[in-house]
Order: sequence, then C-alpha cells, then structure tokens
Amino acid sequence: MRALRVGLIGSGYMGKCHALAWNAVAPVHGDVARPELAMLAEANEDLARERAAALGFARATGDWRALVGDPDIDVVSITTPNAFHAEMAIAALAAGKHVWCEKPMAPTLAAAEAMAAAARASGRVAMLGYNYVQNPAVRLIASLIGDGTIGQVNHLRIEMDEDFMADPAAPFSWRSEAAAGYGALDDFAVHPLSLIHTLVGLPAQVFGEMAKPWPDRPSPAGRRAVETWDIAAALLRFASGATGTIQVSRTAWGRKGRIFVQLFGDRGTIAFDQERFNEVQLFVAEGPRATRGFRTILMTPDHPPFGAFTPGAGHQLGFNDLKTMECRALIGRIAGEPSVGIDFADGLAIERIVHAIARSFREGRWIASAG
Amino acid sequence: MRALRVGLIGSGYMGKCHALAWNAVAPVHGDVARPELAMLAEANEDLARERAAALGFARATGDWRALVGDPDIDVVSITTPNAFHAEMAIAALAAGKHVWCEKPMAPTLAAAEAMAAAARASGRVAMLGYNYVQNPAVRLIASLIGDGTIGQVNHLRIEMDEDFMADPAAPFSWRSEAAAGYGALDDFAVHPLSLIHTLVGLPAQVFGEMAKPWPDRPSPAGRRAVETWDIAAALLRFASGATGTIQVSRTAWGRKGRIFVQLFGDRGTIAFDQERFNEVQLFVAEGPRATRGFRTILMTPDHPPFGAFTPGAGHQLGFNDLKTMECRALIGRIAGEPSVGIDFADGLAIERIVHAIARSFREGRWIASAG
Amino acid sequence: MRALRVGLIGSGYMGKCHALAWNAVAPVHGDVARPELAMLAEANEDLARERAAALGFARATGDWRALVGDPDIDVVSITTPNAFHAEMAIAALAAGKHVWCEKPMAPTLAAAEAMAAAARASGRVAMLGYNYVQNPAVRLIASLIGDGTIGQVNHLRIEMDEDFMADPAAPFSWRSEAAAGYGALDDFAVHPLSLIHTLVGLPAQVFGEMAKPWPDRPSPAGRRAVETWDIAAALLRFASGATGTIQVSRTAWGRKGRIFVQLFGDRGTIAFDQERFNEVQLFVAEGPRATRGFRTILMTPDHPPFGAFTPGAGHQLGFNDLKTMECRALIGRIAGEPSVGIDFADGLAIERIVHAIARSFREGRWIASAG
Amino acid sequence: MRALRVGLIGSGYMGKCHALAWNAVAPVHGDVARPELAMLAEANEDLARERAAALGFARATGDWRALVGDPDIDVVSITTPNAFHAEMAIAALAAGKHVWCEKPMAPTLAAAEAMAAAARASGRVAMLGYNYVQNPAVRLIASLIGDGTIGQVNHLRIEMDEDFMADPAAPFSWRSEAAAGYGALDDFAVHPLSLIHTLVGLPAQVFGEMAKPWPDRPSPAGRRAVETWDIAAALLRFASGATGTIQVSRTAWGRKGRIFVQLFGDRGTIAFDQERFNEVQLFVAEGPRATRGFRTILMTPDHPPFGAFTPGAGHQLGFNDLKTMECRALIGRIAGEPSVGIDFADGLAIERIVHAIARSFREGRWIASAG
Repeated sequence: MRALRVGLIGSGYMGKCHALAWNAVAPVHGDVARPELAMLAEANEDLARERAAALGFARATGDWRALVGDPDIDVVSITTPNAFHAEMAIAALAAGKHVWCEKPMAPTLAAAEAMAAAARASGRVAMLGYNYVQNPAVRLIASLIGDGTIGQVNHLRIEMDEDFMADPAAPFSWRSEAAAGYGALDDFAVHPLSLIHTLVGLPAQVFGEMAKPWPDRPSPAGRRAVETWDIAAALLRFASGATGTIQVSRTAWGRKGRIFVQLFGDRGTIAFDQERFNEVQLFVAEGPRATRGFRTILMTPDHPPFGAFTPGAGHQLGFNDLKTMECRALIGRIAGEPSVGIDFADGLAIERIVHAIARSFREGRWIASAG
Repeated sequence: MRALRVGLIGSGYMGKCHALAWNAVAPVHGDVARPELAMLAEANEDLARERAAALGFARATGDWRALVGDPDIDVVSITTPNAFHAEMAIAALAAGKHVWCEKPMAPTLAAAEAMAAAARASGRVAMLGYNYVQNPAVRLIASLIGDGTIGQVNHLRIEMDEDFMADPAAPFSWRSEAAAGYGALDDFAVHPLSLIHTLVGLPAQVFGEMAKPWPDRPSPAGRRAVETWDIAAALLRFASGATGTIQVSRTAWGRKGRIFVQLFGDRGTIAFDQERFNEVQLFVAEGPRATRGFRTILMTPDHPPFGAFTPGAGHQLGFNDLKTMECRALIGRIAGEPSVGIDFADGLAIERIVHAIARSFREGRWIASAG
Repeated sequence: MRALRVGLIGSGYMGKCHALAWNAVAPVHGDVARPELAMLAEANEDLARERAAALGFARATGDWRALVGDPDIDVVSITTPNAFHAEMAIAALAAGKHVWCEKPMAPTLAAAEAMAAAARASGRVAMLGYNYVQNPAVRLIASLIGDGTIGQVNHLRIEMDEDFMADPAAPFSWRSEAAAGYGALDDFAVHPLSLIHTLVGLPAQVFGEMAKPWPDRPSPAGRRAVETWDIAAALLRFASGATGTIQVSRTAWGRKGRIFVQLFGDRGTIAFDQERFNEVQLFVAEGPRATRGFRTILMTPDHPPFGAFTPGAGHQLGFNDLKTMECRALIGRIAGEPSVGIDFADGLAIERIVHAIARSFREGRWIASAG
Repeated sequence: MRALRVGLIGSGYMGKCHALAWNAVAPVHGDVARPELAMLAEANEDLARERAAALGFARATGDWRALVGDPDIDVVSITTPNAFHAEMAIAALAAGKHVWCEKPMAPTLAAAEAMAAAARASGRVAMLGYNYVQNPAVRLIASLIGDGTIGQVNHLRIEMDEDFMADPAAPFSWRSEAAAGYGALDDFAVHPLSLIHTLVGLPAQVFGEMAKPWPDRPSPAGRRAVETWDIAAALLRFASGATGTIQVSRTAWGRKGRIFVQLFGDRGTIAFDQERFNEVQLFVAEGPRATRGFRTILMTPDHPPFGAFTPGAGHQLGFNDLKTMECRALIGRIAGEPSVGIDFADGLAIERIVHAIARSFREGRWIASAG
C-alpha cells in the first residue's frame, strides 16, 4: 500500500496525540509506508500554520472544508470538540476520505446515527478513537477469553474513576451544565462499554443510576445548581445470561485514570487496571490448589504489538503508544486487514447503551438496550 | 466486674471460634476478669463432653435448654445453624442471660424481629457475631470519617467475593436449594451492610439484582435446577443524598475472603480489602499536588486495640483476633461501656435491607428500605 | 500423651505471647491434650500472683529457681531478657525439664554454646522462639523448594527493616550502648538467618558491613556517641555455590515489620513479605510465556496448619497464631514427632553466623562461618 | 535555536529508539524546532537506504565516517555496539559535532577515558543514553531529596533484575564469554549507578561480589564453561557517611525490567520500581502516627515533563517517552540550558565505579572508588 496522505482537523490535546501517532506509526511498526502529513486545519490560518510547523504537517488551512475537499488527502483525523464531529465526519466520508474520529461520536444519538449511516454508505473506513482496546494487555485478555482459559464469562464489573471534578469548592463550569450531556455517564461509560464490546459483546438490558455528590457549586453569581451527574452506575444483563456492572465517577479523589476491570469466568478470573495498564491479573482454577493465585503478567514482546515499541520485556508502554497502535489498526483496516478497533457502527451501538442507561435512570426500570 | 460464667451452644467452626475468644480475652486485653468456661452444649452428651474437654469448658450437656436454664451461667454463646438461633436466643434472654449469637440472625424476617423484640424486652445485652467491624482498621476508617479527614462520604462501593461455589462441576448441594435463602445476598451482603451500618448508616432506598452463573448443577439424579442466586448486587441511596453499591459473589474464582470497600468523600477516599485486613488505603486532598497519593497505613499499636495483641507494629492480626475483640466488646457492653458492635436491633435493621433488596429484585423497582 | 504441665518465667510481651499460645494450642489444634498452666514466675511474688491470675496460671512464685525445681512441671517457657536465658535454660534442662526459650539465645557466643551443650547433654527438647518459620506461607515455600518447583536455589536476598530507631531526634537509649550487642545485626539478622536455615541451610562464608546513620544522639548530658550499628548487611556464599545477601535496618522509616525474602531458583522465583505474611509470590518458568507471571498465593486450609485456625480461605492468620503453631511444634517434638522449629543446636549455628559477620566487618575480609 | 540536523549511526533497537525520539521531540515538547533527520549510516548502503526510509531520514550512507564528516550535520546519534562507541564518538567530536551516544561507553576504561577527554577538548555536548534518569518519577525523587522531604539520605539499596539469562538450559552465547565484559556488573550496574549519581552522588568506597548460578552451559561442542558473572552485588560507602548496596542479576526468573530503589532518609523513605515507573512510593515521618504510611504517587502533569506527553493524570508514560525526554534534554544542553542527563564525564565516573567493584571482587577487599 502506498503512503497515506493525512489531514488533521484540530490540534489540541487529541490533535497532538493523532499527530504523534501519524509520526510514529511507520518507524514503530516497520511494516507500513510512512504516512505523509499533508495538511492541518485549525480555527484560523495563523494558528493552523503554527501548529502545522510544530506537528510536522506540510500545509495548513483555517477552513476544515478545504482540507476535507482536498484531492491529495486520503484520510482525515477529526479531533475537534464533539459538537463538530458529525458534520466533519459526514463531509469527509462524502468526499471519499477515510475517517479517524475521536470519541464520543456526538452529543445526540441522532447525530451518531447519521455518522454511522454515512460511514455505511461511503464504503470507507471510519474508526473512533477508543485506544484502550488496542492495548496488548486488552488483546491478551481477549485471547484468554477466546481460547477458553477462564471459561465462559458469567459476570463482569468495570469501574472508571478520576478526580478532576472531585473538589466541591471548584467553581461551576460547562461540565456541570445540562448542555454538556449526562455527566460521568457519557463522559466515561463509553470506555468501559468499548472494552465490554471488544471482550464479550454489549448487554441486552440495562438499569441505570446517576448521582450528584453536591447539588450546587460556587459561581460568580452565587451558588449554582449542578445539572449533570458526576457519578453513574449501570446493572447489565447479557443475552448469554451473564450479568455485570459499570460504575463511573469523576469525583473519586485520588483516582487518576483508573479503569478497573474484573471478568469472572467458569474456570478463572481476569483483573486489569488502566492505572497500571502494562499488567494483567489472571487466576485460573487449575493445578494444585496450594499454588493457585492471581498471577501478575507483565507485558513483553510475547504480547503483540508490544515488541514493535521495544524488545525490552517489562519496559512499559505509555498512553501515546496506544494511539500509535490505533493508527496502525486504522491503516490495517484501510488495507483490508482485520484489525482491532471500534468503528462507527460499533460506536453507535455503544452510544445506544449510554442513552438506554440514562432512560432507565429516568424511568426507574430495566430497559432493553439492543437494537 | 466479676468473672462472667459462659455457656456455649454448638462447637463447630464458630463454636471453636467463640471458645478461643473466651479463652483469650482476659490475657489479651488484660483489663477484664478471666471468664469462667462453665458449660458446653452439643447435640448429644458424648459429643458435648468430648468438645468441652477440647475447648476447656467445665461441664457438658446434650440439652441446650439445660444450659440456658442453668443459674450459674451469665452469658450464652449461640453458634448453631441459623435455623436454631431464634428459639435459643429468645429462651436465653427470657432466662435472663446475656446473648452472643452468630450471624445472620435467622432465616426469616419474622424470626429476626422476634429476636430483637426479646432482646428489647429482656434488658440484657444481645450481640451478633459481626466481627469485621471490630478490626482496628475499620475503627481507623470510622474515626477518619468521624473527624472529617475525608469530608462527608458521598459515595461508596463494597464488593464481597469468595469462590467456594465457583466450580460449575461441583455437585448440587443444600446451598443451591431455595430453603437455604436467597443465596449470596443473605450469605454475604450482611457483612458489607454491617460495615455500612457502622461507618455511615444504612441506606434509605435499594434496588436489587441477583444472578445465577449456571442454571443447574450435577446431582445423582441428573442435572438439577439451581434455586438460589450466587451473585447479587444492590444500588443504594442514602437519606444524606449519598449513593452506593454492594456487589457479592460466591462464584468469583480466586477471591478467597475479599471484601473490597471504597468510601469516597468530599476531601478524600478510603479503600480497604479484607484479604489484607491489616492495611488501610487513604487519600486526602491536601498538601502539594505533586506528593499526593493513596497511602498504605499498616496497623500498629497506634490503632487500638491492636496493641493488646502485640506491641509489634506491622506484626499482623488474624481472623480469630477479631473475634477476641468482639468478645471484649460484649463484655464491655455487659459492664455498661460503650462498645463497637452489632446488637440485635442493628442486626434486624441489616436483615430488613437484605429482604428489601430481594423484593426490589422481584419487582424490578426501587424499594424504600427504612423502617 | 498426657497434658503437659507448664511453667512460665517472665510475663512481659513475650511472656503473654507464650501464655496465649499455651491457652490456645489445644482448642486450636484439637489433637493435643490441653496443657496445664501450672506456675508463673516473675521478679517478685506480688507481680507473679497478679500476672498468673491474668494469664491463667494456677500457681505463682517470685523465685524462678523454685519453678525450675518444681517436680510438677514438665516444660518451662523462658521469656526474660536475653541476659538471663543461659542460666535459666541450663538450670531447667538440668532439672529434666523441656525448654522453650525466646531468641536470641544469649548476649555472648560462649553462653549460647553452653546452652546448646546443656540441651545436648539433657536429652530434653530445647526450642527457641523463632516463630516466623512456623508460618504456613514459609512451610509452603519450603515445600516448593523441596519438590523442585523453582529448581535449585542459586541466589537469595533477605531484607529486614523496621523504624523504631529511625528518628534521629530520639534520645540515646540502652539500645545504642555497646553492651546491647552489635545493633541491628544481632537484633534482626537472626530472623533472616532462621529462614535461611529452614529453607536452604546456612552459608559457608560471609562478608559483613555495618553502619550508623548518625554518629550521636541527644542525651541529658548533651550529645552522646552511638556505640551500636543500626544498619547491617552481609554477603553470603553457600557450599552449594549459591550466593545471597542479608540486609537489616532498624532506622528504615515506614517499614514496620518488613522481612522481604527473594529466592531465585533454576526454574522460578519466590518472594515473600512478612508485612503481608498470609501471601506468597511464586513465579515458575513453565507454560506459555504469554501467561507467565508472579502469582499471589493467599493462605487457605490447603496450607497446613492454617485450617486448624479457621476453615475460611483467605481469612488471615496473625502474629500470635504463629506462636500457637510454635507451641504445637514444641509439643510435637516432646512427643517424638518431627516438627518445624529452631532448637538450641540450630540457634547456636545461627548465632555463629552473626558473630562471623561482625568479625568480617571488623577485619574487612571474608570469613568462613561454618563449624 | 534553529533546527538541529541529525545524523544517526546504527538502526537496530536503540537506533530505532533514537529515531523515534528525534521524530517526537518537537511535537511532544512544543518548545524546540523540529529536528531535521538528515542522514542515517548503517553497515552497508542498501541497509542504510532501507532503514532511512523506514525511520524518516533524508539521506543514507554505508560509511559512518561520511556521516561524521558531513558539514550539514550538527549532532550524531551513536547506537552501534559498545565496541564502536569510542572511535565514532571521538571522530564526531573532533569533527565538531554534538554527540548522543548509547551506554555503556566502551568495553575498556581506557576507551571511556579517551571519550571523556575528547568531549572535554571539543567543547561540544556529549551525552550518554541513560534515559531512566529522565523519568518524571526520578525527577520527583530528586526534588524530594533536594527539598529535604525525606531529610538526609543515610542508606540506599538498588536492585536491578531481569531474566533473559535465567534458563540454565539456554545455550552458551557471546554474553557468557569473557570478551563481553564482567557480566551483570557492566551490563546492569551502570543503571543503578546512573540513578545514584543523579540522586545522591557516587560512592567513595566499594566492595564487590560476583556469582555464576551455573558453571557451564550447553554448546554444540558439549558443555562450555561460563566466563562471565550473571549476578553481582556491591556494598557502597559514601563520603557523607551514608551506605548502600547495589544488587544485579540477569538470571532472576520473572523479573522483566525491575529496578527497585529504596532511599532511606532521616525523615522518610522513598521506594520506586522501574517495572511500574509511573509511580513513586513516599513515606514521610510527619503528621499523626495513626495515618502515616507509604503513599503511592501516580505521575501526572504535576510532574514535569509528564504534561508534554499527555494532560491526562495517571495516563502513563512508556519507555520510548523517556527517550524523547532525553532527546529534549540533549537539545537543551546544546542550547545552553541546564538539563538532566549523564554526560561523558559523568559516564566515566560511573564506569570507574564498575571497574572498582570488579577489582574489589578479585582482591576481596574494599576499594576506594573515587578519582
């Protein structure tokens, strides 16, 4: 496959992340042509030029439509705020580009549905930035489930916790406005759901709960009522008969990037924590009882694609490396290879669950999430 | 206070546990008179005599009513199966004895209510064997909540998991019969609830879920349908506005005695695991951000009553030591001291929550648990 | 075997520990006759009477020689300061008693030699209070070495650290006087050496190092020079060709009862930490490389004699339980059973190593430690 | 500063690592001009061309001298085997280039001395690839020492263990030949020494020990005697009076990239493990005793330069990120900024310690290491 020509829209945190991945994917993986960093679009041309220089893109534009319409671009990275994803992704797909769009898809389910429809219609590759599923540790977990090491999964629990909203004295911000969405549910729960989707498939029924640790926060005009929910939980029922829970909080003091996963199977248990994402905990009910225990498996070149990054067992991968893997997976999909990842159809299924959980919370009853 | 004269009914696992505690409480704590191990009752007189000799009791009887009615006994330890608790406890209280009864109280709510009523009417001390709340680590957690170290608790999560039912090939047993109760819910959830009761007070509303990892198990007459639920979960809402979850499983491969507690407050977070019950994890949002983190606090003589057992910091207490503390707390109550512990009234409140969770599960809706 | 009649000399920290063990050994283990707590000796008769009542001994004396000479005593627990061990133990052995003496044996090598000679001459059982070797976790480690699970041990490292001397502002005490011995070396290193003795046998050659974190400490008469060494280390060479290190410190802030053991074998590695002594870490180089890892083995009834204390897997044993096991081992030896433990001959071999390390430090060269 | 023009010699594991760093340094850090990847030298021109394309270098050559002599190159990355370092580095410095050379410096002390002399004479920046010292966690440790948080360091211990030589059945390789050096000592000990150099300064006296777990290994011509030492240890004495130990092994089953550091100070203790290098363990002896403990500090943007990589607290950095930081530090030095890192003079001091340890081992006595 010849080198892909890349356009990047947005150059903030995730824009830089995509840029690093496009820069690194060829030297790291060694099996793809070095992508051509063709054009960067930002809110205005000056900023675009400055960021293009910093991030290594050849051309710059203040008009994202010019980028999307450029015939010398094959794939478009979309890293703008959620509200812009649908319009940009649909335009890019319509222009025949492959798309790599950050998650979550869009603020409304309708917009997400339009994105998925556009992807289906286009015949192009349209992936979302759920990089946690790329992790060699998560791939190991998937293979341990796939090969029956822990038997059939009959129960699972996932928690995702951070503390950036944990200070009750922090002033009211846009994150506490209803316009920002539900709160922790859409902010965080998509991550656990992307893992569930990848590892065991999405649930058939959900029951939701949401909570506000504090009813209001300080604002210049006095205390202002918080409109979003910083804590959420969902009970899950799967078609297989398995059950599970998701719990998320952005007010969990001391948790920084915790995603604690527990998968219980007929023959064993797997545990994993995103705060130590180079490790997998595995218990298998085999061998003499006196020497059974959870084993801590450190990631090494025995866990692809770890070895593409370093031959040094236990030498640790970082968050940006996950993004480079995601970029490699995207290139693989474009080349027709089967590749790990969450595409627009998967992403839509995930967002449907999120909305079903919210509806269940409002109605106080179980909701069928599928379809 | 003069030495208590102790009668013990039952001499299995928990009977031995009580016997060890009655033996150890005076030398360990050094501030109570050495109890007199007066009489042991077992199913028949031969067994009673043999066990009395082994466990250090002076007299033996095959008739528990003789023990309960003996004028030279002050306090009765009841360690028989649950089905017998109510009759024995009520008889002992009626005879003017103090009672130390193993948990859970009784198979039915009505029986538990009768026990609580009998205790109230008797004016005697009637305690339940919830020894986990005696742990110096749990006392430390209570004091950290009480003195505001982590601020107001706004969310909590407790998991309790073991694996003694985790093998799907294990034959059908009485534990899978409906007569045994709900399953994991009544078997396990009382422990997390005893901690919640002790630390923050019981919830006002619950939503319950229960699950069977496998619909049937092998039995001599072919596969037999499982009638109990090996996995349960509950969403909790507290009057304060706080929320929480309890999750329990007796089919969690690799978990041996895990009770993982997370308490999230306005200023910090506490975590605790019963499998490492000599440690408390504490995060406080104070001091320079660059040196904040969860600290692992090892139990030492700075954490009463640790020092009664050993002056050696970090030297570790064991499960039986918790029972000795519980025995000391019982003696304290009898002497009129305020003491940590779950009495019959507390125990009844806990069992009401259990039944409310089960009812919520049946009805698929939130249930008010209080009152 | 009929019930042993026990005499206890000393009733401080370790005296209480022995008393608890003598109280608990029969009900816990269930396979020995309940010992008769016959007599307690203390510095004076009043104290002896008070302590005998608290700890459950029938008679009391202010004269330890009366206890040692009493015809109705079979076994003597010696828990006085080290300086008294030799005289008391030798007298007790001469009087035909079995002896259970706290470690270390004695302040001088000559006294330890005399004790070992007296034990040999008496034909009685003479054990030392090295209770860490009784731990089910340590027995598991021994069996993993014995059955070849980790192959031949070719290297080992043991650290023992506490912090009770870690504050440089703490006043000069007897522990810093030369009369107290070397310092951390004799205070602590005997524990790692007891484990080494039990698991792989003692080293043939040693090289020693000792250090003072601070040259002096405050005293009423101004700063006073510290005469002991709060930190020590030793390089070890074994006859097998294996090597190892011991490192000890009583000035290691934050370490409470850490004894961190690493045993490296041809086929695997074992790690263990006394601060979490209900766990063993085991790595075995077998099976697919992608699922290898250190497994955390929690102690359960599969690890004797855990089940004598509780049938609850993962329910944790405590420090005092180790002492009860030691008491059971002593009774076993008296009954002629092979039993885990460090007797006077073993203890002497350990103390010889300690003195060889100190000599090596003084002379700056390797010292042959054997013989 | 204008963009640096980079020449890379060698394109294996570490060559790729340097290439990734040169690619990423500008977009990651955002405060330096994007380096120009000018030329890559490999063993022959074909390989050079292929690797230049993969790693993003503009020109290629089969002759490293052409690269070193090229006027359009400012800085030379040397990533060839150790035996070539001296010749290449000296030539590059002589040609007026800055040099970034992988560690260790050279097989002989004389060669290392020549390199340091060449660097001194050139006036150019000459850095070594000790990337572990760049870690935000290590910088945090340095600042905690610098600001007195743990007081004066009075003792330290560092272990470095991997298992790539742990299989006794693995065939004899060049690593077991005397020509490869001492073994674990020069292979590994330079890493702990680079940390010691950075954190507290190098020791004044050393005592060395080395060991062979197995005397021979299989080879095509039968068993062949192992000439190197897979295990080494050193006792350290510092001019300050502090003491310490280094222990290294490449036969430690299950250890993948463990570098376990313990730093004991007058007021606290720091622990760190390279296998979880996004975490620092800190104990400080302050505040109420009942809430003291080791705290686990997760790396976040509060720990520079973490934030250059991701704004996500706790999102984890990887091994290659450390190399990007090292590249940034090199650019900083070239620009005259004070920057973390090990230059040729530092590297020589480290290698002198290594040789002193080996000499001590041979002579069985303490060796003064300084000067």
